[in-house]
Amino acid sequence: MKPLPLEKAFTLLEPGPVVWVTTNDGQKNNAMTISWTMVMDFTPVFAITTGPWNHSWAALKATRECVIAIPTADMIDDVVGVGMCSGADTDKFERFGLTPMAGGQVRAPLIKQCMANIECRVTDIIEPHGIVVLQGVAAWVAARRKDRRTVHAVGDGTFIVDGERISRRSMMRAKIPPGV
Amino acid sequence: MKPLPLEKAFTLLEPGPVVWVTTNDGQKNNAMTISWTMVMDFTPVFAITTGPWNHSWAALKATRECVIAIPTADMIDDVVGVGMCSGADTDKFERFGLTPMAGGQVRAPLIKQCMANIECRVTDIIEPHGIVVLQGVAAWVAARRKDRRTVHAVGDGTFIVDGERISRRSMMRAKIPPGV
Repeated sequence: MKPLPLEKAFTLLEPGPVVWVTTNDGQKNNAMTISWTMVMDFTPVFAITTGPWNHSWAALKATRECVIAIPTADMIDDVVGVGMCSGADTDKFERFGLTPMAGGQVRAPLIKQCMANIECRVTDIIEPHGIVVLQGVAAWVAARRKDRRTVHAVGDGTFIVDGERISRRSMMRAKIPPGV
Repeated sequence: MKPLPLEKAFTLLEPGPVVWVTTNDGQKNNAMTISWTMVMDFTPVFAITTGPWNHSWAALKATRECVIAIPTADMIDDVVGVGMCSGADTDKFERFGLTPMAGGQVRAPLIKQCMANIECRVTDIIEPHGIVVLQGVAAWVAARRKDRRTVHAVGDGTFIVDGERISRRSMMRAKIPPGV
């Protein structure tokens, strides 16, 4: 993994891919699959929606840290698999052969197989809504990787894989944040 | 537009497409382009992040209603165009040739050219974060339409168009909500 300038990190989540959120509760690593995420600011700030029914919730609240790891289309079976079991009774890193890597800012692990990882601190938890607000503090991208296509959950058991990329940079110049 | 069962409406936003949010302040229609959206529940509940710098903010706060309209890849220039001007000085429906249609539940307009529209009521505004929480109350899809590919903003002026769709419905059966 090589460092990605932090001002570019929001571009990893803005397209709405399915992601993993990793935590470490002081004893073990865990990961959950979610697509309920949102960019809230370019600095970057993100929101995720989850709740007490999720095993990662306790670790998010206690440690106030996590990593957003971004898997790719070739990893779809692991993406679904991680989402279908619970950290309460499963070591997901072991079961799915995911390799944890130390980041620089938080104790939650990066995932080596992913296209990118964003280290985050929890800055707010809006309890009645289950919204966790995250400040990205470091970002990493895989240096060499063929498949960079992310997947987008539809919610009905199907997933849309990234297709063609089109540019409107010249039309949008006035609104693209500095450094992006 | 034909009605879409409300329990399926979250599947329109779950993949993270760029959308338009329309409002009507009692005098005129407006639309904004955003990709800062998140599903929060299947019922459906959504969040969007915006703020007072956005002309639609006042209408969202005053009327507590909006429509989430979902454009497709063939409409990319209008998607960008709507995002690059302000309702403060522009009638965006007129300028971009968008056709407003009456929904059944809210005064904000559906957009006829879109692949789908979701009528929403504002149920909460979390001011310090600029998060607007929306309850979907009716959903509509275009009955006949060739291009159903949505676009995903990267945030750097480029957009990813929907590619191949893959199914993991059998793996995910236990977690797919009823009616989806």
